[in-house]
Amino acid sequence: MRTTVPRKQLADALGHVERIIPSRSSNPSLSLLQIDLNGRSMTLSGSNLDIDIEAKIPADVDSTSSLTYALPAHVFGQVVRALPGELVELTFGDNELEIVSGTYGTKLQLASTSSVTLLEFPLSYAGSLDAQKLSSALSHVRYAAAVAEYQAIFRGVKLELDDKKTRAIATDGFRLAYYNLPEASGLDANIVIPSRSVEEIIKLLGDGEVKLSVDNGQLSFANGPFRVNVKLMEGTFPDYNRVIPSTFPINVSVNSKQLAEAVSRVALMADKSANNRVDMFVKDGNLQITAEGSYGRSQEALEVQQEGKESEMALAYNAKYLTDALVAAEGDMQLRFSGTTSPSVFSSLKDPNYLAMVVPLRTG
Amino acid sequence: MRTTVPRKQLADALGHVERIIPSRSSNPSLSLLQIDLNGRSMTLSGSNLDIDIEAKIPADVDSTSSLTYALPAHVFGQVVRALPGELVELTFGDNELEIVSGTYGTKLQLASTSSVTLLEFPLSYAGSLDAQKLSSALSHVRYAAAVAEYQAIFRGVKLELDDKKTRAIATDGFRLAYYNLPEASGLDANIVIPSRSVEEIIKLLGDGEVKLSVDNGQLSFANGPFRVNVKLMEGTFPDYNRVIPSTFPINVSVNSKQLAEAVSRVALMADKSANNRVDMFVKDGNLQITAEGSYGRSQEALEVQQEGKESEMALAYNAKYLTDALVAAEGDMQLRFSGTTSPSVFSSLKDPNYLAMVVPLRTG
Repeated sequence: MRTTVPRKQLADALGHVERIIPSRSSNPSLSLLQIDLNGRSMTLSGSNLDIDIEAKIPADVDSTSSLTYALPAHVFGQVVRALPGELVELTFGDNELEIVSGTYGTKLQLASTSSVTLLEFPLSYAGSLDAQKLSSALSHVRYAAAVAEYQAIFRGVKLELDDKKTRAIATDGFRLAYYNLPEASGLDANIVIPSRSVEEIIKLLGDGEVKLSVDNGQLSFANGPFRVNVKLMEGTFPDYNRVIPSTFPINVSVNSKQLAEAVSRVALMADKSANNRVDMFVKDGNLQITAEGSYGRSQEALEVQQEGKESEMALAYNAKYLTDALVAAEGDMQLRFSGTTSPSVFSSLKDPNYLAMVVPLRTG
Repeated sequence: MRTTVPRKQLADALGHVERIIPSRSSNPSLSLLQIDLNGRSMTLSGSNLDIDIEAKIPADVDSTSSLTYALPAHVFGQVVRALPGELVELTFGDNELEIVSGTYGTKLQLASTSSVTLLEFPLSYAGSLDAQKLSSALSHVRYAAAVAEYQAIFRGVKLELDDKKTRAIATDGFRLAYYNLPEASGLDANIVIPSRSVEEIIKLLGDGEVKLSVDNGQLSFANGPFRVNVKLMEGTFPDYNRVIPSTFPINVSVNSKQLAEAVSRVALMADKSANNRVDMFVKDGNLQITAEGSYGRSQEALEVQQEGKESEMALAYNAKYLTDALVAAEGDMQLRFSGTTSPSVFSSLKDPNYLAMVVPLRTG
């Protein structure tokens, strides 16, 4: 069985599949790449048990029958990336795959396909969305998911799919971000995706439509050359709506990049072991940022557009929580302060779909 | 005491000094940056005991007296890199340094200067060279120094300074590289520089002339804004001249980049635990490269210009030793083979100053 494929196309598809397949595993068959040749296409697939992935690329196959091969994914990936020619000729024998490109040739040992898990992807998808918009929604909120937390559910990103909207939400209990896409997917489901899988979904989503399906504890999608299954998290995501305040005695508008940079500079003096604390003081259209730690103290003041029934407010935050929430959006942002000890809400004036909430540090 | 300096100039100089100063040390005073204000310049200095460095930058100082301050180098570096303005105003008080730039201000605690080691740099330099040429000589050979070896001297780069030449040499016992600059420095000395210090020297050397001095077990140099002392290694560097063969029954000419890429590709199949072995076979103007390991085998053939009294030769090498020696030079290279088990000598046809020697692996 012989096929010829453009090197770049093979390398690009393989790059994504290889990222999912573990390079080492206590179960060696998990580090194998499965290659299916069928008619005029070649399909690369693999899994890390949390994510199954398949990439299909067009290929000239000299046979119409269907055959399956397996080989170590990362060795194959290294070889493909190093190939000197524009085209790659792959000849599958009983025990070896011969790869020829330009002046270079290699013969790779094939593995037995008997130990490879058969991956199953849905035959039909009930829902769909614009792939770039879904990617953008997930990209805006993933920073707020917990890295390590006593409740595993905080390490996930919730996706609310109903007949009016598609909303992505992440929270670690101290801050929250959501992105409200005013578009229905055709699905009706509340699911929680592990944040590590969210990173991969963002990398895989390209242009055009992404087909979606939720079934049997997994989210499946198809976009461009990829079909993917993602295992979902179990458990109850916190009821975040009730913690978002609705009255704000003070709110200010400021450029998000400018504020994020000022906070980062001032935070250089903040005490890392004391929540990386920076203080903010709003008064008379002036936002004063200060920090103090063992090396010294620093401050910076920005002019802001101030509104609200109270004339001043003092707040303290973890500097990283502020900058994470600010850099996720571009342009001007509205910062609404509900009080010194109750959550602050940030929204983008340019992109009304994005909202972030940060709980101030308790002071004194 | 107050001074104003351009931020970029301060950040660039500080970047180099900060790289030398350890961020943590069992001796906390070693992680301090010393700042001397004197007339119309500001001098930044520090040491890691192997290297002393000083960078002088022009500065508007509002006093003609000379004063010395000390503060944590890496905290100061972080602040300077983050400053928003083009200019930096530094005001030194008794206990604090106030830094103002644009809308941002910070006050850094100063450290006591009593614990700071006084660095001494030579008042005069007996030798000099073109800085870029010295940097090039060191850059061409450093790869051949040992990373870890039973004899410490192999972790150094030798510099032979006499009235005819300046030669840099490195060897780890299995390969060797030298770069023979046909220029006298005015010094007469054989010194061995630790390879980690060689990396720093290469980064510090800029344009123009570098003044040189060897005294008291250290190499001192001055180039651009920098004055630097480098502690030299003790011990006897191996007598490398006697191991370089002089008769070669076969030699070939080939493009070094092309050969290096082919060797890297073929070596993907080489067994990392068996010296990363690749085999070469020269015959009839053809250079065949092969490798074999547990994943499979690969080969590539290049056309070469072949000369010599023998018609063919088989050789085996550590692939990394081959590619290191090849990528250090550009353009066409001559590979001279003294025999299957005796050293091979590579020289650049474009740059006659460069020579590399690689000892083949014992086969069978």
